[in-house]
Amino acid sequence: MTEQVQALLGKEFPCLDKGFVRLIDVMGDDSAIVQAARVSYGAGTKKVLEDRGLIRYLMRHIHTTPFEMVEFKFHVKLPIFVARQWIRHRTANVNEYSGRYSEMKDEFYVPAPDQVRAQSVTNKQGRSDDLFAPEEAERIRTLMSDTQDTLYAEYQDLLGTNLAREIARINLPVSNYTEWYWKVNLHNLFHFLRLRIDAHAQYEIRVYGQAMAEIVRAAVPMAYEAFEDYMLHAQRFSRKELLAIRSMLISGTPEDSILEAAGLKGREAQEFISKLEDLAQL
Amino acid sequence: MTEQVQALLGKEFPCLDKGFVRLIDVMGDDSAIVQAARVSYGAGTKKVLEDRGLIRYLMRHIHTTPFEMVEFKFHVKLPIFVARQWIRHRTANVNEYSGRYSEMKDEFYVPAPDQVRAQSVTNKQGRSDDLFAPEEAERIRTLMSDTQDTLYAEYQDLLGTNLAREIARINLPVSNYTEWYWKVNLHNLFHFLRLRIDAHAQYEIRVYGQAMAEIVRAAVPMAYEAFEDYMLHAQRFSRKELLAIRSMLISGTPEDSILEAAGLKGREAQEFISKLEDLAQL
Amino acid sequence: MTEQVQALLGKEFPCLDKGFVRLIDVMGDDSAIVQAARVSYGAGTKKVLEDRGLIRYLMRHIHTTPFEMVEFKFHVKLPIFVARQWIRHRTANVNEYSGRYSEMKDEFYVPAPDQVRAQSVTNKQGRSDDLFAPEEAERIRTLMSDTQDTLYAEYQDLLGTNLAREIARINLPVSNYTEWYWKVNLHNLFHFLRLRIDAHAQYEIRVYGQAMAEIVRAAVPMAYEAFEDYMLHAQRFSRKELLAIRSMLISGTPEDSILEAAGLKGREAQEFISKLEDLAQL
Amino acid sequence: MTEQVQALLGKEFPCLDKGFVRLIDVMGDDSAIVQAARVSYGAGTKKVLEDRGLIRYLMRHIHTTPFEMVEFKFHVKLPIFVARQWIRHRTANVNEYSGRYSEMKDEFYVPAPDQVRAQSVTNKQGRSDDLFAPEEAERIRTLMSDTQDTLYAEYQDLLGTNLAREIARINLPVSNYTEWYWKVNLHNLFHFLRLRIDAHAQYEIRVYGQAMAEIVRAAVPMAYEAFEDYMLHAQRFSRKELLAIRSMLISGTPEDSILEAAGLKGREAQEFISKLEDLAQL
Repeated sequence: MTEQVQALLGKEFPCLDKGFVRLIDVMGDDSAIVQAARVSYGAGTKKVLEDRGLIRYLMRHIHTTPFEMVEFKFHVKLPIFVARQWIRHRTANVNEYSGRYSEMKDEFYVPAPDQVRAQSVTNKQGRSDDLFAPEEAERIRTLMSDTQDTLYAEYQDLLGTNLAREIARINLPVSNYTEWYWKVNLHNLFHFLRLRIDAHAQYEIRVYGQAMAEIVRAAVPMAYEAFEDYMLHAQRFSRKELLAIRSMLISGTPEDSILEAAGLKGREAQEFISKLEDLAQL
Repeated sequence: MTEQVQALLGKEFPCLDKGFVRLIDVMGDDSAIVQAARVSYGAGTKKVLEDRGLIRYLMRHIHTTPFEMVEFKFHVKLPIFVARQWIRHRTANVNEYSGRYSEMKDEFYVPAPDQVRAQSVTNKQGRSDDLFAPEEAERIRTLMSDTQDTLYAEYQDLLGTNLAREIARINLPVSNYTEWYWKVNLHNLFHFLRLRIDAHAQYEIRVYGQAMAEIVRAAVPMAYEAFEDYMLHAQRFSRKELLAIRSMLISGTPEDSILEAAGLKGREAQEFISKLEDLAQL
Repeated sequence: MTEQVQALLGKEFPCLDKGFVRLIDVMGDDSAIVQAARVSYGAGTKKVLEDRGLIRYLMRHIHTTPFEMVEFKFHVKLPIFVARQWIRHRTANVNEYSGRYSEMKDEFYVPAPDQVRAQSVTNKQGRSDDLFAPEEAERIRTLMSDTQDTLYAEYQDLLGTNLAREIARINLPVSNYTEWYWKVNLHNLFHFLRLRIDAHAQYEIRVYGQAMAEIVRAAVPMAYEAFEDYMLHAQRFSRKELLAIRSMLISGTPEDSILEAAGLKGREAQEFISKLEDLAQL
Repeated sequence: MTEQVQALLGKEFPCLDKGFVRLIDVMGDDSAIVQAARVSYGAGTKKVLEDRGLIRYLMRHIHTTPFEMVEFKFHVKLPIFVARQWIRHRTANVNEYSGRYSEMKDEFYVPAPDQVRAQSVTNKQGRSDDLFAPEEAERIRTLMSDTQDTLYAEYQDLLGTNLAREIARINLPVSNYTEWYWKVNLHNLFHFLRLRIDAHAQYEIRVYGQAMAEIVRAAVPMAYEAFEDYMLHAQRFSRKELLAIRSMLISGTPEDSILEAAGLKGREAQEFISKLEDLAQL
């Protein structure tokens, strides 16, 4: 583990009003990806590609298994409704705080004023960019907070009657914070980040995605750069869209100056030209 | 699909106060398990064992893959806190109702009077068998129900201000009902049932486990019987416990009358005798 | 199950010289995908999109879980080296013929004359398009076949000495045919097909992919069409490639005639325009 | 990582005639299991149980998720037929040497003289304990070895004609050695070990299981001890077997001296007594 990653261990990255992400442990780094890939290729590609080039090649060609050889473990504190979206990523290991064993804590999420927003008209599942009037946003926040206080007091009252914890907690809201250890390999973590950093993800989980992305960038800088270039900022076009793009192109072959300006060279430039040739065949 | 299973399709099995389990589809039956097992064994065991014997053999010897060849799909309506326990079973497919796309419904779980119970002293995660006084149980139930009404009214008010659904719902409690389609193979379903029918499971998820168990028993009667005999009602003893049991035995070899009374014969009796011999070697 | 799919059940689709794919069972069809998606969206999208439109929307936006609600079970006969590539797809259920329980059969793969090809120069993992001279190809095929005969005779001799099957088989070659039942959900099957129908996949597994693709197309025609448009014949461009494409475009906005010619309309046309706008922001 | 584990890193544990297991990396140790479990239980069990007791409790009660928080990565060299059994454990990450990219090496497994054994009569899938006559065993070994030489020479000849590697290798036998990186969490590794250390596993994979077991024992000694007591050397009795055992017991309650002799005390003794009480209720 590099000193830089060592320095990250245990550090709390605050998320939302009361949550956090903490890196607990990492197995492997960029060189572990290379090491595993070289086992597959044997003498076949030994030393042909230097490490960064190999990692980028693997990412570009969706050779995902070497990325599975790196593992991250996080400690996360998050609202239950965020946990419910997060847990849908099944290929991971989880130990969550249990409201059956222990008392839930008096910690609830209240959106910041700039996140109190109207329903989006175009996106059925999201919020719009329109802010509420400040006093209205504040009214809503106070209402939410007061309700949370009431619910927690009621929870405490029920525990006071000696009602079983597993029943007493059923009226606690999904804004209540929970905690877990979450362990995942880098391939699945990239998949998580791609979906959860995306603008379509709910803001509250995006914040956690962004915090983890910073940690991952520090731990496996080459892999993260490749992820950004070939996954996060890549764009997929459907068959029909490719037809439209073909009609919109000045030429079916890029001039050298265009390749150069885009930073495409060597094998990567060849692959691009070959994609354009495929376009002509469509 | 047998007529009996056909008759189960779509039928609501009520669970808790407002939930249900409905069988949506099944792929395969007892014979599908046998069919898959016979591929593995090839001519090796063809016709040596009849179907029921083969299924029992597979279950007894933890040959789990043929049970994966049967698949169940359920539609389930359940409180969020039950869904949170359920979803920890990762090897399954899920489509859940989304509080981002659609309004959550005005349906909440309130425990029946006989489930309003005190915290267990011996079991840190569960409730005791002690009932509350009827009037106290009723007071708690009314309190819970009133709170749920208040929370839902508040949710409606927030939606009325045009607050985004994904934010408005954060103070809805984990007693709120949600719905999902849940698809799982028989091996993983048995694993789920074993953990969730068990007395240590929270009562509210056990109810769903029991409903599904009835459906599974009807759909794959031979496999379910084997599951009961070799998994559900089996008992595992640790190395130390085996030492203690050895000391408590009248004899290291069972008399024929004992085998007969227990219903152990043929290969199964042999396996039992062999386990006892292992005990002597411990 | 439609009559068309019913007619496919059990039918052998020949693959390679002695292998096959047979559809054993299917759970669900296009409408099962829609049904599961509608549970997620609740009243939110009910009837807004008709079935085909919804399926295409789900595929386009990588909402994969509804596709997991359809399950296929195949019986496959395939050479061991193909099985070794195939089994890397982990999210599936498998029962394979066992060379420990049963005798391996006297069936081996010999490539057809037009598949006896030279090592590719550009593709380190594949064969080139160059054919061998017919007599040389035939010589190689005969050599392979003779060796297989010798190996099987030796295997029989070893079994004749009563050597344990699990040892006697260790010199059988990876061209030996094995069989299995393979069960997988539609989402994972599409993933398999995308990788294995691809020109980079080894020819011998591609043949099986193509046979299964035909079966899938018949069983879930809408989903398969969406898979072709948005996955199989889609193309992903990296950040740099997008920069190059941007420089090559006549205009950042498509004319209506181009959209029309490409078959892009309504929501899909909007999404395309929005992708091009993102390009301008890159 | 303790010095003891550090010393294991990279060390080759020879397996069979030419194979090995090497530990490449470990994430976590006994304390990582405890740490994850304490998140689940929160204040509920903090400090009630010391580490060893907690780990044993988790194993005994099949609370498996904390064991998933430890991860092992191995480099393994193994015959293809062993790899084919191994890969059936799906919840793991693998990068295998590719016979498409690179030449397969001239290394093949030949069983040691004492493993050249007859087919078992009682166990359809295994070998008996009967050895062959030394000269017969030697004859078989020489035959195997000669065949391997011939096959490898033929492979080289085919490569010499420039036949694509992916075709040239199809007559290489399953005794040919391959290599891979294999990464797995401790819960799944214990599951692997339980099945593969077992006497029913083929000898050739058992050897690898035993080598890994030694490594695991050194890396997580408390967890390994619990695994041995509650999983590996435990015994499960079916409902019928429990009935028979009940009839064979001198008494339904163990005397203190028996508990003491078996090493059962405290909570574990209570659990045993409670199992015996359940027996009485059967």
